[in-house]
Amino acid sequence: MSKVTVSRKAHFNAAHRLYRKDWSNEQNEEVFGKCNNPSFHGHNYDLIVSVTGSINVDTGYVIDIKILKEIIKEEVEDAFDHKNLNLQVEEFKNLNPTAENISVVIYNKIKPRLETHLELEITLFETPRNFVTYSGN
Amino acid sequence: MSKVTVSRKAHFNAAHRLYRKDWSNEQNEEVFGKCNNPSFHGHNYDLIVSVTGSINVDTGYVIDIKILKEIIKEEVEDAFDHKNLNLQVEEFKNLNPTAENISVVIYNKIKPRLETHLELEITLFETPRNFVTYSGN
Amino acid sequence: MSKVTVSRKAHFNAAHRLYRKDWSNEQNEEVFGKCNNPSFHGHNYDLIVSVTGSINVDTGYVIDIKILKEIIKEEVEDAFDHKNLNLQVEEFKNLNPTAENISVVIYNKIKPRLETHLELEITLFETPRNFVTYSGN
Amino acid sequence: MSKVTVSRKAHFNAAHRLYRKDWSNEQNEEVFGKCNNPSFHGHNYDLIVSVTGSINVDTGYVIDIKILKEIIKEEVEDAFDHKNLNLQVEEFKNLNPTAENISVVIYNKIKPRLETHLELEITLFETPRNFVTYSGN
Amino acid sequence: MSKVTVSRKAHFNAAHRLYRKDWSNEQNEEVFGKCNNPSFHGHNYDLIVSVTGSINVDTGYVIDIKILKEIIKEEVEDAFDHKNLNLQVEEFKNLNPTAENISVVIYNKIKPRLETHLELEITLFETPRNFVTYSGN
Amino acid sequence: MSKVTVSRKAHFNAAHRLYRKDWSNEQNEEVFGKCNNPSFHGHNYDLIVSVTGSINVDTGYVIDIKILKEIIKEEVEDAFDHKNLNLQVEEFKNLNPTAENISVVIYNKIKPRLETHLELEITLFETPRNFVTYSGN
Repeated sequence: MSKVTVSRKAHFNAAHRLYRKDWSNEQNEEVFGKCNNPSFHGHNYDLIVSVTGSINVDTGYVIDIKILKEIIKEEVEDAFDHKNLNLQVEEFKNLNPTAENISVVIYNKIKPRLETHLELEITLFETPRNFVTYSGN
Repeated sequence: MSKVTVSRKAHFNAAHRLYRKDWSNEQNEEVFGKCNNPSFHGHNYDLIVSVTGSINVDTGYVIDIKILKEIIKEEVEDAFDHKNLNLQVEEFKNLNPTAENISVVIYNKIKPRLETHLELEITLFETPRNFVTYSGN
Repeated sequence: MSKVTVSRKAHFNAAHRLYRKDWSNEQNEEVFGKCNNPSFHGHNYDLIVSVTGSINVDTGYVIDIKILKEIIKEEVEDAFDHKNLNLQVEEFKNLNPTAENISVVIYNKIKPRLETHLELEITLFETPRNFVTYSGN
Repeated sequence: MSKVTVSRKAHFNAAHRLYRKDWSNEQNEEVFGKCNNPSFHGHNYDLIVSVTGSINVDTGYVIDIKILKEIIKEEVEDAFDHKNLNLQVEEFKNLNPTAENISVVIYNKIKPRLETHLELEITLFETPRNFVTYSGN
Repeated sequence: MSKVTVSRKAHFNAAHRLYRKDWSNEQNEEVFGKCNNPSFHGHNYDLIVSVTGSINVDTGYVIDIKILKEIIKEEVEDAFDHKNLNLQVEEFKNLNPTAENISVVIYNKIKPRLETHLELEITLFETPRNFVTYSGN
Repeated sequence: MSKVTVSRKAHFNAAHRLYRKDWSNEQNEEVFGKCNNPSFHGHNYDLIVSVTGSINVDTGYVIDIKILKEIIKEEVEDAFDHKNLNLQVEEFKNLNPTAENISVVIYNKIKPRLETHLELEITLFETPRNFVTYSGN
């Protein structure tokens, strides 16, 4: 029973601002620079969701990609697409929406939707040149 | 004196919202759908600036790409990157920032910076799947 | 009223075989080589549909991309995706499904769905290295 | 003696159908949906073959990429390109050609061609959005 | 008899230096900057060759892509790949190998190999962000 | 304190030649083929620098990408871009500039610039089809 990783790409567009409410303007400016624009800026986020497990000998699938696609739609696209992450997404009301934190939030939303024997890794592109990877450790 | 088109890719990240101040909420919602989110959403815009002219026989250049790169930086990247187009960019204070209108604004900013014998075309990717092209006609 | 081209990318997967029923095996083999495999082979076709027209001053759109996306879905994706072009798509029952011919068929299906003042161009990638462009001339 | 992974991209086009001969039409339809089209559909498969080992201090190579390219050509491209996987490739006569199973078959064909101290990983893109990875565990 | 453009991508790697023998070091340095490195630098050039003509009603082809691929191999890849353009390619012994000039040279090598009714366009990427287009005018 | 990998893409253009001074011409020719061109050839190298560590709970960052970008600029781009690796880069005066060796050199230059708890991985694309990965083991 060979272990294979199955990956699915998706994307969403969102506005965000990097800052901490409990810091002064100066401190936010120094740490987050132009990402601290109070009027927000935005990204086309590209997302790769990777699921690892044994091949089911009956179907030849690790996971039916149609099911994985539906989970991504419900947990990520419907929740984040065309939204302002800071103002309109519950998880970021008190959490700075850096790429690192967004990848952890996405992991925590998708993991409970998968059968427990499956491993999960999230890769999130904030821009084509900047991306992060998180696998729950 | 062969005519060649020289193209340079650039990009910027910005937030925007599609709507008209003089329309009702219902009308904006009907025409612009989720792009009308009042809290804004955002994109990684990819930009291709194409300049057409004769090859200079001395240098072998149509235009020095270092000069073109500097013009794009001054007119587009410094002006739009990490900005909220509706709130922070003069040209869109009374103009809906659709991809079509943004491409015309960029054309009008870059054209006067080029020698008059050079032709210009702007290609703007709002997402990897949606893009527009404008060449001044 | 500036003229802008709006483009939308889409894709579909299909099987096909290049051959003519009225030619001998030898002739098909000589002209179409391994593309003449009688058991078929297949491609992930990438499609760019480009529509040119004046910007509507009310909306800032040339065409609402949601409408264009729906037209592509109905005329191309629903008709061709996961199909055998030779056996299951009416237009290719007596027409060799080369990339050239597929692009003309797609043009002829989408053009009547657009307002008459709009121009149309079809770009079809058979592979990332081989593609064709057709604009109705 | 640093361990480095050397990767080479390749591709092939093929037709396939997902189904099990020993299942009813209804069962195949329910599990495999439109991938069960009896007239087949197809893909441009992109393949990344990754070989890990120590750098040879004489040549600076882990493996000569020209040799790796030749192995991929003989074992994968010559065997699968422009073929119908179900009908014309021995390994899939009784094995459902899912991306997962194809990656295992490719691994098992290439591994014996490599020196035994080298590790192997196969990444197979069925479409630009769906891909699988297998490294022999 | 519809007119379609058929395009084929290819690539080659080469070293080059931008300078004029008849200019002083200072003048070369001022105009060509770091591209004037006397020890050369290099690029992976990506090339798109586009041929426009009527579809042949017998074959469904504008041009057999296998023939176009062979012409590109003979005229460009065999001549330029893994070469130093300034020192080892006849056409650039007295012509500055800017992207503009390389595209004209490639056009002039491929055009006579095509049937006279076919039009030709060359697109040459010096880097993924800098590219030129030439169509013989 | 979740561990996340943060990656940044960069690139540089350079000329190189694969050969060993202490080997005969015949031996270099046999092992390195056309990569042994005495007049050099070149590449657009694409580089991915990946840094793994815990998310800083104050900033939401593993590493400030602006700092990582600056380290890559100083250690790699300023040192290698538009250079002849064999003739103008100290590290390759007696080390064959294969992709494998370049990735180890880049790792050894960047690692001391990072806080000691951070892990590092280097991915280097010599061409879009050939790339190597090194993580210090």
